[in-house]
Amino acid sequence: MIDTPYLEVDVDRLDRNLAALAASARRAGVDVRPHAKTHKCAEIARRQIDAGAVGLTVATVGEAEAFADAAGITGCTDLFIAFPLWAGAEKSARLRALAERVSLRIGVDSVEGARHLAGSLDSAPVQVLVEVDSGQHRTGTAPDRAGEVAAAASAAGLDVIGVFTFPGHSYGPGQTRRAAAVAEVEALAVAAESLRRAGVEPRVRSGGSTPTVGLLGEVGSGVLTEIRPGVYPFNDAQQVEIGSCGFDDVALTAVATVVRRDCRRIVLDSGSKILGADRAAWATGYGRLLDHPDARIVQLSEHHAVVEFGPDTPTDDIPRVGSLVRVVPNHVCNAVNLVDELIAIDGEDTRWPVIARGRNS
Amino acid sequence: MIDTPYLEVDVDRLDRNLAALAASARRAGVDVRPHAKTHKCAEIARRQIDAGAVGLTVATVGEAEAFADAAGITGCTDLFIAFPLWAGAEKSARLRALAERVSLRIGVDSVEGARHLAGSLDSAPVQVLVEVDSGQHRTGTAPDRAGEVAAAASAAGLDVIGVFTFPGHSYGPGQTRRAAAVAEVEALAVAAESLRRAGVEPRVRSGGSTPTVGLLGEVGSGVLTEIRPGVYPFNDAQQVEIGSCGFDDVALTAVATVVRRDCRRIVLDSGSKILGADRAAWATGYGRLLDHPDARIVQLSEHHAVVEFGPDTPTDDIPRVGSLVRVVPNHVCNAVNLVDELIAIDGEDTRWPVIARGRNS
Repeated sequence: MIDTPYLEVDVDRLDRNLAALAASARRAGVDVRPHAKTHKCAEIARRQIDAGAVGLTVATVGEAEAFADAAGITGCTDLFIAFPLWAGAEKSARLRALAERVSLRIGVDSVEGARHLAGSLDSAPVQVLVEVDSGQHRTGTAPDRAGEVAAAASAAGLDVIGVFTFPGHSYGPGQTRRAAAVAEVEALAVAAESLRRAGVEPRVRSGGSTPTVGLLGEVGSGVLTEIRPGVYPFNDAQQVEIGSCGFDDVALTAVATVVRRDCRRIVLDSGSKILGADRAAWATGYGRLLDHPDARIVQLSEHHAVVEFGPDTPTDDIPRVGSLVRVVPNHVCNAVNLVDELIAIDGEDTRWPVIARGRNS
Repeated sequence: MIDTPYLEVDVDRLDRNLAALAASARRAGVDVRPHAKTHKCAEIARRQIDAGAVGLTVATVGEAEAFADAAGITGCTDLFIAFPLWAGAEKSARLRALAERVSLRIGVDSVEGARHLAGSLDSAPVQVLVEVDSGQHRTGTAPDRAGEVAAAASAAGLDVIGVFTFPGHSYGPGQTRRAAAVAEVEALAVAAESLRRAGVEPRVRSGGSTPTVGLLGEVGSGVLTEIRPGVYPFNDAQQVEIGSCGFDDVALTAVATVVRRDCRRIVLDSGSKILGADRAAWATGYGRLLDHPDARIVQLSEHHAVVEFGPDTPTDDIPRVGSLVRVVPNHVCNAVNLVDELIAIDGEDTRWPVIARGRNS
């Protein structure tokens, strides 16, 4: 028995999630380039590549380095850093070194950024995609200005191969997912046309998030050539609560011990230092309990989760002090980044190292 | 130049914060047993011990092991695991081993928990404190039932030396801090009396949090013998926003690069994977900018922070793309737990390993 709290992966469910996404993508005729930032594990990347993924998406240079180092396990040497990097001297040297050992794609979202990246790369062989804003208002240029960025990048010597976006505003209940999926397709279509007018062929039109993947067939995917969902191998409480999956699809939980009970309230030894502290405005609480869907996590400290059970739970079903409970984190990407290994349960238990943990730069 | 994002410590401010807290405690006649979970660094623990701390507080067995391993640096072999542990076979063995190399104190908060701990320890030399609830409604027994828990612990062979609480409900703006400080003192007084009635001498009455430390002189500290504040070496945006310190007292920031600018909005390459995702209901946003107190962090993803500047900031003062910015995390304890080292700036830069990073169990 492993000391709690720890993160556990249900490998059957993981494999089902990987297969289901791969099948959806095949039906929709789009490539899968999963975002490895969610799992940061070579073993899971390997399974994604085996299921047909064309490469991996990563968020940082450090994450790219970790997965380049793991190419022998994953079988993948095709990495897309989907972030408009501004690289100082050290980061630039690291990018040039990476470009020598993997096929590397990098994002740009401004004329200034594109020129600076070209200077950083100094002709190292890298492909570039222009990021556009499809409604999240984070990074990304306006879709109808993508051509301007592409032209500047080309003029600076970069090989521009397409456009990408992240529909992060799909993270919300109700019709939010559908609205974001529609907005994403429109943004990429406008951006692709903007590139063509600038004389750049938008071969790759990359989008998608776990919440919008389920709408691929309905929302005119002729535009998208590639999707980059991250969360889908595991899912999490946010995905359950916005309706993009059910509890049965959750493949990663934090195993915790009940350390206190007062009537219909228990306290677990799992806190924000293993679950993450994410709590969207629309969330029911700080996570969920996999085996007690009606319970609510009402309070979260660094090492304590306070759970309340509603009137419909028979008193005898409330976990006793000393028993183990499985917690579904609100945002699994942040939970995984807090540990050095995942305990993969597949008959017996195997340790999967989180090879890119903490690789923020 | 170190690649961003990274966590940086202003050592002058750190030392001022350590000295100020030590002086407040001396004036109030209480011992300082700082909570090491905030910094998880041997070098900072050493400075706290040199400033007069009687020992360290930790949150988990793993954290205790890390600091026991570092005793040669810190000069400290007196550790209090301020958590009502429920230890399985493995954790029990680790506790017994720890008790052989440090002076170990552990929390209990129930009759059941006390008996279980006694079984786990199997006569290993450990001292025990009874945790009471002073209003946070997390772990801790009701103050007037502390004697019952103490009696059961004693009967099971444990050496009960006192009571403790954590006034976590002090984390809020306005009069919240003062109300929590008063409630804490009352709870410890009631608990101490409850122990005396049960025939157990409450030698140690341990409380305190960074927000309530400033009120030590005003709120009848004759009850408290020891305080366990964690955040005070660094402070953070939460502490600034609840009024327990100012921006000039903030000693830890995340250094980030501006990767995009649109008018009065910029995007930084620091996200929740280095800042943590904490955002209390009363917070102004997802953290603050140290050099721009009027800016607001309006959106936070794993690798992006979106910052908006209000009308009072001259346009020329808004940081340009490629420039560096210092972000104050909302909750520094969670930020530190996300990195392997802190960059300590003291003339030159030194790396301080986060020795207890990820030690959740």
